Amino acid sequence: MQTLVIGLGSMGFGAAVSCVRAGFQTIGFDINPDALDRFQAEGGHPVQSLDACTGIDCVLIFVVNAAQAESVLFESNLLSKLNPDALVINCVTLAPSKAIEIAKNVKGNGFRYIDAPVSGGAAKALEGRMSIMASGAPDAMRDAKPVFDAISEHVFELGDDPGYGSRMKLVNQLLAGVHIAAAAEAMNLAASLDMDLHQVIDVISKCAGSSWMFENRAPHIADGDYTPLSSVNIFVKDLGIVTDEASGNQVATPLSEAALSLYQKASELGLGSEDDSAVVKILAQQSKVTLPGSNT
Amino acid sequence: MQTLVIGLGSMGFGAAVSCVRAGFQTIGFDINPDALDRFQAEGGHPVQSLDACTGIDCVLIFVVNAAQAESVLFESNLLSKLNPDALVINCVTLAPSKAIEIAKNVKGNGFRYIDAPVSGGAAKALEGRMSIMASGAPDAMRDAKPVFDAISEHVFELGDDPGYGSRMKLVNQLLAGVHIAAAAEAMNLAASLDMDLHQVIDVISKCAGSSWMFENRAPHIADGDYTPLSSVNIFVKDLGIVTDEASGNQVATPLSEAALSLYQKASELGLGSEDDSAVVKILAQQSKVTLPGSNT
Repeated sequence: MQTLVIGLGSMGFGAAVSCVRAGFQTIGFDINPDALDRFQAEGGHPVQSLDACTGIDCVLIFVVNAAQAESVLFESNLLSKLNPDALVINCVTLAPSKAIEIAKNVKGNGFRYIDAPVSGGAAKALEGRMSIMASGAPDAMRDAKPVFDAISEHVFELGDDPGYGSRMKLVNQLLAGVHIAAAAEAMNLAASLDMDLHQVIDVISKCAGSSWMFENRAPHIADGDYTPLSSVNIFVKDLGIVTDEASGNQVATPLSEAALSLYQKASELGLGSEDDSAVVKILAQQSKVTLPGSNT
Repeated sequence: MQTLVIGLGSMGFGAAVSCVRAGFQTIGFDINPDALDRFQAEGGHPVQSLDACTGIDCVLIFVVNAAQAESVLFESNLLSKLNPDALVINCVTLAPSKAIEIAKNVKGNGFRYIDAPVSGGAAKALEGRMSIMASGAPDAMRDAKPVFDAISEHVFELGDDPGYGSRMKLVNQLLAGVHIAAAAEAMNLAASLDMDLHQVIDVISKCAGSSWMFENRAPHIADGDYTPLSSVNIFVKDLGIVTDEASGNQVATPLSEAALSLYQKASELGLGSEDDSAVVKILAQQSKVTLPGSNT
């Protein structure tokens, strides 16, 4: 299966390398030359232009947002490089309504589409252990199985139509984004009370206040290390999709809005490329709290 | 060790029964006669008045809030019923500053004090498997060990002074209260998108959006069952402590405030005694979403 991965960022790179490891002919495309070099070092076939591709059976899309996904699908020559009936697996987090719209357009061009947003972070992606929230026609899901097996630990098969995958991702991102902000709020309060932040993590991880994100991100705050695993800007985007989708349906999401406001403020202050846990810096600034690793 | 448990609610009842099971002479006091009957059925010694107590070595306080704890400690004849150097173990969730104030008063009366808020829920309490966030003098902690062993699975020893236990509980309740509200917000959004709510729980529980509270409370929403494990009013109280303590120190807690507002609205609408996950009904009402078990 001739596979093309578009977008070699934290998740796409892991998926592409996992495909290489599983023995697929894997082409990788990114506008960042460093990512192409790293992919070549892992045994992949980097291309600097989609013109260099041909006979693609399966394309995995790992670009940043819906606009980029639409651009690469419908404003480049990508579709002309695909074999008839090729699989278009869109792993980008986007509004369910947008997933349905893109699917319709891809199918109208004679290809098959799987709505397949992913979760799990860069480390798991690199190990071929991401989670995929997938929906699409049974034949497409069947033919995608070898690729999904190569890149993922869990594939949640959520229905035959596009949109179901994106709806689940939306719910996951709501929770993930709020939980990171809650972890930041809790750690900032703990710092204000002169608590031992590593002890806080040890105790809370064993109590009812724990979350996947607390256990994963609170150590960044205790260590003062904001090297990005996932970034502030990802949650500006994803909680933006959550609140847009919700408000469009008159659905109340007050916690998502409160969390989004923190990510937006962090982004406006130039922290957009830092780890998402850097939202704590906004709270610390508002609270006159000194955090580990802070210069103030 | 002659032990007295004051307050036989969801956590206190479990602690009292666990003490009986461990072989302690255990007296239980509550103003609710049903709780006393149930305690007697488990082999405990219920009393309808503290006048019936004498020679107490260890008192565990499981009343609802700081005002009740102060009332029972300083406005009843409790202290006259304690042996010299008796242990006063206060398991009530209260502001750290209040824990320190109560400890000072108890010690001034010649007794020993452990600041010991608990976590884990009624089911674990009944199995003697709660978690205790304890701080107090080493000799008090040593002498309390048999009691802690009887009622808990984890004892976190957080320092020699009262206040450390309550600080940790404050951080836990911030996270727990926000995570329940986030679970409600996510489930309400999922319901608005016509998703299968049990499938949402299955998937999210394996993804980065999960939390202890999501896994525990989201099923209540999917099942439409708001039988209280812990109640809305508990979080009106506990997030009130969080936001009061934070605002007193000019510490920002925007997510706690957003969550508290939901619990307060739920309580005002008469849902205060329902399970805390009933905050989702406020969101559903605001969003015109029909939830499982809803009559509308």
